[in-house]
Amino acid sequence: MTSQAAHEVRPPAGPASAFAETVSADDFKAAFRNHPAGVSVITTQSADGPVGLTASSVFSVSVNPPLLVFSLSTHSSSTPAIRDAETIVIHLMGAGQLELAKTFATSGIDRFADTSIWSRLVTGEPILHSANAWLRGRIVNRIETGSSTVVAVQVLQMNVQDKVEHDAENAHPLVYHNRAWHSLSEASVVG
Amino acid sequence: MTSQAAHEVRPPAGPASAFAETVSADDFKAAFRNHPAGVSVITTQSADGPVGLTASSVFSVSVNPPLLVFSLSTHSSSTPAIRDAETIVIHLMGAGQLELAKTFATSGIDRFADTSIWSRLVTGEPILHSANAWLRGRIVNRIETGSSTVVAVQVLQMNVQDKVEHDAENAHPLVYHNRAWHSLSEASVVG
Repeated sequence: MTSQAAHEVRPPAGPASAFAETVSADDFKAAFRNHPAGVSVITTQSADGPVGLTASSVFSVSVNPPLLVFSLSTHSSSTPAIRDAETIVIHLMGAGQLELAKTFATSGIDRFADTSIWSRLVTGEPILHSANAWLRGRIVNRIETGSSTVVAVQVLQMNVQDKVEHDAENAHPLVYHNRAWHSLSEASVVG
Repeated sequence: MTSQAAHEVRPPAGPASAFAETVSADDFKAAFRNHPAGVSVITTQSADGPVGLTASSVFSVSVNPPLLVFSLSTHSSSTPAIRDAETIVIHLMGAGQLELAKTFATSGIDRFADTSIWSRLVTGEPILHSANAWLRGRIVNRIETGSSTVVAVQVLQMNVQDKVEHDAENAHPLVYHNRAWHSLSEASVVG
């Protein structure tokens, strides 16, 4: 745990709160189900061993210092270990790692069962070898919302695969949209 | 302005700070250039008239209450007006709105010049008619980082186009990746 306190997002006071009740949960979910996002797998080393989950809410917020943000749903069993970790690893996934992304989104299995696909950094966190890029960082802020935690991470160490750095067009990132997995390529370019 | 204070993300103290200097800005940018994201246009009504910008960092963090988060770069001229607004509108863009997304990402033009494509809500904020969905909300938290602000919004009111609600496969969301615009469709599904 870092020494930074968690911040709570409070609903606005006053008449606007009445408005909030006009937003249907179904509408809100439908809108964001159609809002696509790149796919990441986030791992850490807990007291009980390696922990990891698939997330589709990672974005960078600052280059100097290198900061990224993501959210964790309170519904995922791996959330407490990631949320409370001091350091974690964020893996940015390509379409070639579809099965790995699915594994880390599946409940009730040992997500680290295949020991050929991961190893440990000297600092203890598990890394998945095949990811397009991995970034190891320290959690510097946590914001508690209704049903999730927004986590801010300062990146300490990272690795980008050569194909991503030098041949980005062929790195084919993995995208999650409307409960399906997509890959971007030349064929999906519209402008 | 809401009454909630802005929180600052502080770099970690102690030996880890030395680590941070080993992350190259080029590597960090290369990793996230390859990390795709759905495209949004965010608008507000400022004292000087309507303001808007294209963003690729919007995600939902909670359904109850309905909350979303995005980041604003300090490099964009429209950032101060959006960041300091009390209420804003987030539009989730489809591939059919590519030109609109480009317009709101272009500097030095009047982004609202074509008055046929937008109108005002009774509360004053501009809305773009063609977006797949729009969500009007109140800013409930701001987190200042090195070169951007992370903004949390509670949604007060929203509209989802019928095609998104009932025919999500044909809503074809717009995705930004590696400095190009992509569309998702049946053809991009991998799993």
